[in-house]
Amino acid sequence: MKPNAQTCTDQKITFFHAPQSRSGGTLALLEELGADYELRLVNFKQNEQRQPAYRAINPMGKVPAILHGGALITEQPAVFLYLADLYSQARLAPPPGDPLRGPYLRWLVFYGSSFEPAIVDRSQKRAPAPPMASPYGAWEDVLNTINQQLTQSPYLLGERFTAVDVLWGGALHWTTMFELVPETPAIRAYADRVITRPAMQRAAAKDAELFALQAA
Amino acid sequence: MKPNAQTCTDQKITFFHAPQSRSGGTLALLEELGADYELRLVNFKQNEQRQPAYRAINPMGKVPAILHGGALITEQPAVFLYLADLYSQARLAPPPGDPLRGPYLRWLVFYGSSFEPAIVDRSQKRAPAPPMASPYGAWEDVLNTINQQLTQSPYLLGERFTAVDVLWGGALHWTTMFELVPETPAIRAYADRVITRPAMQRAAAKDAELFALQAA
Repeated sequence: MKPNAQTCTDQKITFFHAPQSRSGGTLALLEELGADYELRLVNFKQNEQRQPAYRAINPMGKVPAILHGGALITEQPAVFLYLADLYSQARLAPPPGDPLRGPYLRWLVFYGSSFEPAIVDRSQKRAPAPPMASPYGAWEDVLNTINQQLTQSPYLLGERFTAVDVLWGGALHWTTMFELVPETPAIRAYADRVITRPAMQRAAAKDAELFALQAA
Repeated sequence: MKPNAQTCTDQKITFFHAPQSRSGGTLALLEELGADYELRLVNFKQNEQRQPAYRAINPMGKVPAILHGGALITEQPAVFLYLADLYSQARLAPPPGDPLRGPYLRWLVFYGSSFEPAIVDRSQKRAPAPPMASPYGAWEDVLNTINQQLTQSPYLLGERFTAVDVLWGGALHWTTMFELVPETPAIRAYADRVITRPAMQRAAAKDAELFALQAA
């Protein structure tokens, strides 16, 4: 076996994906990384994510989930951290020791721990919990934190495009589209910068195709 | 300068902490890591976290936050990931390439992205968002996922105690105490296994002392 083929095999992952769902971010990342993966579709139209077969893989019944070397990785920011480190040759993750590693971890985790809970409250039209209890404090703080960074630099970590932007660029595109996030010039320009990338476009086209092909 | 002193200087961080708050988990981790840090207290009794001086450090006005080499790292799971990798000699983080790295990332991120939003809904006595919108799906899924793992192994990653357990052991201790999480035998035994560790006890004593000393 050639060394290259060996590397490829070691890096191959299994990806559990539901078209037109949260796991679209991971599909886009895999495309940006040029990753080697086996796609396993989870049909939300048939509620497969709640069935025992899928629960045996991920007890939370959520996507994205990946398997690599027998290990399960779930939660979008964790999946991003894992994949971008695994495919380090794509240079989408500042490695441990790089001065950008801390901000990189911060922005990935902030997405799942603060931004998403805030978006859920917004979409459900419910008030946030009191600031001391809420995971994100106040909605204005979330918006200010994002806008403050994006008015300073083209990408969240500065001049350099990373896996963080795959997650946030896609998310800010759809959350502004659904008017859950107010579209500031900085946010619009940033989302456009990200979603017009060839790999992002390929992932979006593939996802739409997978959705259309899936049985209701 | 001796090599050892140099290492120490490079690893020194600044830690923004409010006694008896969420950042207690980070205090415990620093103790477990034997880390070198400068403590900067944020006085919640005086609402310092919302004041411009602290906002200039963390625009979200939250703790924990750390500074290292001029970089800001926020969000508890990100702070844990960063510190346990930085102090790799303490061996509380499976490094990239280790078969436990994926599960390690999964459990750290799951804490902030699923468990904490679920706990906020429980503490506010509000219904979760519909499963497709909620970051955690259903409360039962969160509980089952935790209990399923803890009935299989003494620690969340198996036989080995890691930074994940510093976060979860402490959290399951206080959430069962406040009856936000039902106390199963597996959860009780796990929380006890973690909180009785000498470093965890030292951190708890230090935190109580800092809280008592802080001006109202």
